[in-house]
Amino acid sequence: MGGDQAPDMVLKGAEIALVRFPDLRFLLFGQQDRISPLLERLPLLKQAAVLRHAEDVVTADSKPSAAIRTGRRSSMRLAIDAVEAGEAVCAVSAGNTGALMAIAKIVLKTLPGIDRPAIATFLPTAVGESVILDLGANVECDADNLVQFALMGDAFARAVLGLSRPSIGLLNIGSEELKGGESVREAHQRLRDGVPGLTYFGFVEGTDIGKGTVDVVVTDGFTGNVALKTAEGTAKLYSGFLRSAFKSSLLARLGYLLARPALEQMRHRLDPRRYNGAMLLGLNGIVVKSHGSSDEIGFANAIGVAHDLCVNGFLPRIREELAALSAPATVQV
Amino acid sequence: MGGDQAPDMVLKGAEIALVRFPDLRFLLFGQQDRISPLLERLPLLKQAAVLRHAEDVVTADSKPSAAIRTGRRSSMRLAIDAVEAGEAVCAVSAGNTGALMAIAKIVLKTLPGIDRPAIATFLPTAVGESVILDLGANVECDADNLVQFALMGDAFARAVLGLSRPSIGLLNIGSEELKGGESVREAHQRLRDGVPGLTYFGFVEGTDIGKGTVDVVVTDGFTGNVALKTAEGTAKLYSGFLRSAFKSSLLARLGYLLARPALEQMRHRLDPRRYNGAMLLGLNGIVVKSHGSSDEIGFANAIGVAHDLCVNGFLPRIREELAALSAPATVQV
Repeated sequence: MGGDQAPDMVLKGAEIALVRFPDLRFLLFGQQDRISPLLERLPLLKQAAVLRHAEDVVTADSKPSAAIRTGRRSSMRLAIDAVEAGEAVCAVSAGNTGALMAIAKIVLKTLPGIDRPAIATFLPTAVGESVILDLGANVECDADNLVQFALMGDAFARAVLGLSRPSIGLLNIGSEELKGGESVREAHQRLRDGVPGLTYFGFVEGTDIGKGTVDVVVTDGFTGNVALKTAEGTAKLYSGFLRSAFKSSLLARLGYLLARPALEQMRHRLDPRRYNGAMLLGLNGIVVKSHGSSDEIGFANAIGVAHDLCVNGFLPRIREELAALSAPATVQV
Repeated sequence: MGGDQAPDMVLKGAEIALVRFPDLRFLLFGQQDRISPLLERLPLLKQAAVLRHAEDVVTADSKPSAAIRTGRRSSMRLAIDAVEAGEAVCAVSAGNTGALMAIAKIVLKTLPGIDRPAIATFLPTAVGESVILDLGANVECDADNLVQFALMGDAFARAVLGLSRPSIGLLNIGSEELKGGESVREAHQRLRDGVPGLTYFGFVEGTDIGKGTVDVVVTDGFTGNVALKTAEGTAKLYSGFLRSAFKSSLLARLGYLLARPALEQMRHRLDPRRYNGAMLLGLNGIVVKSHGSSDEIGFANAIGVAHDLCVNGFLPRIREELAALSAPATVQV
């Protein structure tokens, strides 16, 4: 029921994902009288889905605390309950992020060794794709949090981007060791001293995000949220300027027509729908958040992210890394 | 002597600025044997400039503390000393930012009512230009700092962008009052309650920077630095993709040729050299920092920013606003 165009967009997205991954099976949670008629028009999905009626809906403006208290029969809550009960391997929602995180924390609990869950996504770079986290779950972070984010980002990059040894960078305002706040400097020290399983690159700056200097960019939720949204805003500004440039003269219009196939390819590469699917990391279960403004293509991609995380063993891997982190260090004689 | 292509680039930039503003007069500080021969080839500048020899140079990798201790005869120090002595109305440098800020703080001192100076710049938006600060002078900021940044940004936008009532936004990760850290929420409260002379818009997000939702974006130095560099990186990523798109086929190349004048106009609008000139705000004097990688066009623009700040009464205005802020509130009966 979450997202601006729900439930229609969610169902169509599930149908698209089903074509891509025919083994998928869905538990759909929401208002039966709205979903049933839509499902009739999607016979492929209907065959692969079970619809469970949910009385309540968590709205986009619900406060997380209210969503927890009053939303025990909401579609969002029931979907996450299904993950907790082992009925579903993951939950995908385009609903209220704060409520989703709050409910997921209460129902699924955080993994042993994780103090606070984080939100991660991937985004386009000059050389491919990178992961960035946290995107807003934690406004203020200590060094422990940042080191844990590095581990979670590493496991996420392996599962979703298929990398075997992702490089990790810590976002800072300079590459010198004296820059940045205390938590950033302490996390840098610990990552540089070595964390089992991680390939630490060092500090990176804002410009490195687009360059793709590292596979995983680690930062606190405030900075990460601002960075991601600034990148989105700059991309929009740029494409707006480009659109007006192509419309500014007859010759420019003609030029656009000739270059169109090449420009479409570029647009496809930067299509935000390709990067839809932020994961709530650090929980005992897989929960993926789609943009609320997503269309069905974007939602299908968010389901694809959840699929990759399940199939590529994200949870066992992160559990293993966390266990290695908390195990006593081997003494070399 | 500061900047990758100094002193050549600095002198050529001064000559360009002189053509634009024929009233300008320059005090040049640096190594005489390197500058004199260059000056011979710039007769216009030579007539309008006095060269003062400086033994030492603050290098790009000097630590701020070292630049203060050992750099008493550095070109950077002497330039700022000239502002303090009233010989110059402002200083412009493409050198080491940390050293420049440290020397400027010691020599010029902060304005009464300002706890910490900040660095501000302006950048392109969908509707014109906006100011953003702090860009890295202060990694952690309390509510007082943020309110003072708002005042400084306001005065900067009036002087450089020529706005009569700039709107101020506080950068956050959501528009709800509960989001963000404590300092951000407290600064929001105080700005919303009203600060004399300021037009406060409220919270803005990363996407609002490119949109130009407000004229002045206020944030701490860590977030501002990351946001600005992320925007730069995204713009580079986008133009890199665009370049490859236009090179990807013969038709696309032809399309580029036809659309070229329109695209050049867009490039001009987004040209980073147009936005060169970050100001060190909150000091008893005007100090403008050019990008170290700037060319002469960019450096001339940084001189232009300094010119605008002097001519448009930036310092008297900010002094007035700070006095009004610290004056007891008028009680309305």
